[in-house]
Amino acid sequence: MKKRLLTSCLTTFLFALYLTGFSQTDRNGAGPDTPPKALKPKIQRIGILLFNNFETLDVFGPVEIFGRLKEFYTIEFYSLEGGIVSSTQNVKIVTEKFREKDSLDIFLIPGGMGTRKEVSHEALISKIKELSSTSTYTLTVCTGSALLAKTGQLNGRTATSNKRAYDWAISQGEKVKWIKKARWTIDGKFYTSAGISAGMDMTLGFIRDVHGSDLARKIAYEIEYTWQENKEVDNFYLQDLK
Amino acid sequence: MKKRLLTSCLTTFLFALYLTGFSQTDRNGAGPDTPPKALKPKIQRIGILLFNNFETLDVFGPVEIFGRLKEFYTIEFYSLEGGIVSSTQNVKIVTEKFREKDSLDIFLIPGGMGTRKEVSHEALISKIKELSSTSTYTLTVCTGSALLAKTGQLNGRTATSNKRAYDWAISQGEKVKWIKKARWTIDGKFYTSAGISAGMDMTLGFIRDVHGSDLARKIAYEIEYTWQENKEVDNFYLQDLK
Repeated sequence: MKKRLLTSCLTTFLFALYLTGFSQTDRNGAGPDTPPKALKPKIQRIGILLFNNFETLDVFGPVEIFGRLKEFYTIEFYSLEGGIVSSTQNVKIVTEKFREKDSLDIFLIPGGMGTRKEVSHEALISKIKELSSTSTYTLTVCTGSALLAKTGQLNGRTATSNKRAYDWAISQGEKVKWIKKARWTIDGKFYTSAGISAGMDMTLGFIRDVHGSDLARKIAYEIEYTWQENKEVDNFYLQDLK
Repeated sequence: MKKRLLTSCLTTFLFALYLTGFSQTDRNGAGPDTPPKALKPKIQRIGILLFNNFETLDVFGPVEIFGRLKEFYTIEFYSLEGGIVSSTQNVKIVTEKFREKDSLDIFLIPGGMGTRKEVSHEALISKIKELSSTSTYTLTVCTGSALLAKTGQLNGRTATSNKRAYDWAISQGEKVKWIKKARWTIDGKFYTSAGISAGMDMTLGFIRDVHGSDLARKIAYEIEYTWQENKEVDNFYLQDLK
């Protein structure tokens, strides 16, 4: 037992040593990106906003990735009222109610058919505005960017969204610099991804920006995911299957 | 309102007509595959087994895909005791208790660190044996195949598993014809996939086998997922990052 503890401590120490060597510089960048702030060495709180009819993979793709880095992140699921929230694909998740005057390290907003209703839900939009203002980073997946755009937080900033709901998404923020052809975009503290699976590529991109390429590639490999590392390569832009 | 109903009926009818034209033959096959039985035209029940410390994406990758086909499938989440079950990545899901003498159309078993404990959980292994015997299809993702192997149901059959837990997985079923290099395998009614994201490729492969390539590709495109269509191409087999 003692031996196991010792081995575990040694592994943790070596891993920490390994991480300190990670480069923070090799991003595929263009546009008005600014280098992201390195996260403080404490465990970071990721708060994920859920609402009924969110898209399943928008949430659980990023959760799979962030969830493997327990030494850096905790993941919490929130909704405006708390309680059980259901995805479009009938996944029933337990959520907490948002805390008063809370401030998250990373705030993640998924998309899905539910956004069509939530975009007119004033209390939710107001909460999104508050949390995206105070968070260190705000990440959106798919039509989550439409919710964020509605708050005005993306005005004058670059962003993208799901290409199959693009016209609707961009109509939620006319002052946003929408980029149609992008796997994901970065503008300061705001990361926005294209549709559904693109959220995984963006999350791996975020991990690369904060922790370096080696760790991001290691996770992609461990989850056997073929990561599109370049945020400007969007293979789902050109065709439009109906 | 009437017009909308009429349009909706017409769309459903045309879609049904479209589906009847789907080829059932273009699979990337090798080994002892037998063509899968076409599912009956009623809504099929997919039952997903959850246990504590299941791997998040093993479940929600396939759920994202099956969940888009509400005209064919319903998805239900089960656990041995019912109630809330938590993934390794801290996702708390509401599950039902398995019904007595239930028979599922599709039974899906995920993997994850929880399998290390559950493989010795006799009541669970017994339930898996029962459900995999009576289901029309049984699908496993990642180390879910170790749980299924433990029941003896895979004896003499081909199967694969997560390559980073491979030695442990194959030790759960010495009479299984394990295939190390495979994105997924098919042997009769049993589909088994490699690690985590491979479950999405397998699920799209299953959709292709039952409904044809066009529908599988349409879903992959809609969820912006780069589908590895060939079950024998395993890009995560050769290297072994530690």
